[in-house]
Amino acid sequence: MKLICSKSELLKSVNIVMKAVPSKTTMPILQCILIDASANIIKFTSNDMELGIETIVEGSIEEKGIVALDAKIFSEIVRKLPDNDVTIVTDEKQNTTITCEKAKFNIPGQSGEDFSYLPFIEKNEGVQISQFTLKELIRQTIFSIAVNENNKLMTGELFQIANNTLRVVSLDGHRISIRKIPLKNECSDKKVVVPGKTLNEISKILSGETEDMVDIYFAENHILFEFDNTKVVSRLIEGEYFKIDQMLSSDYETKVTLNKKEFLDSIDRATLLVKEGDKKPIIITINDEGMELQIDSQIGSMKEDIDINKMGKDIMIGFNPKFLIDALKVIDDEEIHIYLMNPKAPCFIRDDAGQYVYLILPVNFNSVGR
Amino acid sequence: MKLICSKSELLKSVNIVMKAVPSKTTMPILQCILIDASANIIKFTSNDMELGIETIVEGSIEEKGIVALDAKIFSEIVRKLPDNDVTIVTDEKQNTTITCEKAKFNIPGQSGEDFSYLPFIEKNEGVQISQFTLKELIRQTIFSIAVNENNKLMTGELFQIANNTLRVVSLDGHRISIRKIPLKNECSDKKVVVPGKTLNEISKILSGETEDMVDIYFAENHILFEFDNTKVVSRLIEGEYFKIDQMLSSDYETKVTLNKKEFLDSIDRATLLVKEGDKKPIIITINDEGMELQIDSQIGSMKEDIDINKMGKDIMIGFNPKFLIDALKVIDDEEIHIYLMNPKAPCFIRDDAGQYVYLILPVNFNSVGR
Repeated sequence: MKLICSKSELLKSVNIVMKAVPSKTTMPILQCILIDASANIIKFTSNDMELGIETIVEGSIEEKGIVALDAKIFSEIVRKLPDNDVTIVTDEKQNTTITCEKAKFNIPGQSGEDFSYLPFIEKNEGVQISQFTLKELIRQTIFSIAVNENNKLMTGELFQIANNTLRVVSLDGHRISIRKIPLKNECSDKKVVVPGKTLNEISKILSGETEDMVDIYFAENHILFEFDNTKVVSRLIEGEYFKIDQMLSSDYETKVTLNKKEFLDSIDRATLLVKEGDKKPIIITINDEGMELQIDSQIGSMKEDIDINKMGKDIMIGFNPKFLIDALKVIDDEEIHIYLMNPKAPCFIRDDAGQYVYLILPVNFNSVGR
Repeated sequence: MKLICSKSELLKSVNIVMKAVPSKTTMPILQCILIDASANIIKFTSNDMELGIETIVEGSIEEKGIVALDAKIFSEIVRKLPDNDVTIVTDEKQNTTITCEKAKFNIPGQSGEDFSYLPFIEKNEGVQISQFTLKELIRQTIFSIAVNENNKLMTGELFQIANNTLRVVSLDGHRISIRKIPLKNECSDKKVVVPGKTLNEISKILSGETEDMVDIYFAENHILFEFDNTKVVSRLIEGEYFKIDQMLSSDYETKVTLNKKEFLDSIDRATLLVKEGDKKPIIITINDEGMELQIDSQIGSMKEDIDINKMGKDIMIGFNPKFLIDALKVIDDEEIHIYLMNPKAPCFIRDDAGQYVYLILPVNFNSVGR
């Protein structure tokens, strides 16, 4: 095999496929990038058996062939090469020479015959959204998937299509994040759970541009994201996702409207008094005077008043400050509405247009002596 | 005590004194910042008993007093406050209230009576250089102090004044770094060893501007750096520094002149084949054709030719690539000269003006089969 590609094109492609190279594996071949120039295009593939990525690399093929190279070493070499044309040559023993200007690297390769190619996904009935939108949907929900694997379904996100609307949901038992966007093209109803890891990795590759599109296709056990010169195929998480609609009550006793940044900054300040692992709640008191935030810990105490617009009953309620911060950080609105029922019931942060809902369960707090 | 200072002034001052707050200590009071407003100025002090910092803070004193506050908590509070005036009030039990806009923090304080003030240094005969120059001198030498404490003198840097020249030297047994600058003012000869930690911390506080000056004063066991509103006092390392002049031979058999960036980039590329802890040397072959760099490791091999201007004998010599990289990174010249004697003798990278010398010992390498 003999290829010539620019360093910048190589670097871009390597960075993309690196996202599906497992850091640990029992199958050493998976720690390679497969360079396939056996046909008329150059294709890089990586596959950790849950997530697989394939990208087409611009360049010229002087001699067809195929080789699997250690992903980490190959990517480091590419990264450090001068900014010029790079020649990759493989001999019959898969020994690979990478030359750029006067620098010449020699590394061993593998035949790639035991490499796992991506599963074939039939492209019928996909949905198309912009890369910006997909990246935003992920960012605005990914923080509330569960980190431990006790309940596999909680480690993924629900991608649900109904009535030409895509709804993305994540939950971890303490909170639920929901984002909705209308779809431009017609699509039949779908309901799949995509691994959080897939979404994290894909979001690093997406351009984030509103003009760049991504096509999403659904298969029995897989989801395919296709954009630019890249295909990302992921396994889905099996099982029936949680019935969240019955948790989304629209009743409330107290409605509060306030400036998001002020609220976020204040909670952020308060949390410096909470050491990691310590479960100090932030106590929110809402009455006709306004909203008071208070936190007490072994380090000290903090109090802050925030201007609000209040409707309904007075309430005193405690929250894990991290959960509030996570949700507030991904809301772009300047002004937000919080809906509360009682100190034992979840609060809802949601917009009037129905684009987002963040449900957060309150925590108990000791109100003795207050 | 009652003070009012702007958040930005507090933050600047806290960041300065934080550099002398020990992360671990057997004397808990040292983990505090002493806020001293007992006279007509506000002064923050920190002291880890080796390094002490004192800085004057702009602000108004409404009620004189003194308090010691946990440095970490105080600095985090200041960092997260809104950008506005901050009021610090301490009651008779040292309970401290920090208020800014509508945010109000309460933290415990200490009387500060067992706090160690900085030692008094008499300011006779100092030298003055720019903050830029001092920062550069440190950056250009600090990397070759020894990391382990087996030989205490190696963990510091020699600051030597002779003939109105300041010479800064560091060495770790494998290499020596020397930088020299002329002094503008007359000064008697001096020879002290300043702890590397002091230099690292001070270099983070220095502005790096050529117009800002720093005054340096020498005492029996201490050195004092005075700049802006800040005093940094450090203990010196006791003992007689190494006699380096006898190691600085100016004889050579081979002189090579080459482009610094090309050489550095090439070594940098080569090192990606060396895993941490692995002691693979880079082999440099110099002959009439030019210079060839080569590295062989379990991962693969790399070879690169570099254009040079050569005078004298051919030579093949091995180096720890890290030592070459460290020195090359801090040399600003586009073109450098390397002086070599034989494969067992140190190489010298030095300029014609005598501003710097970097001595690096070679390593043995197995030349069988080459």
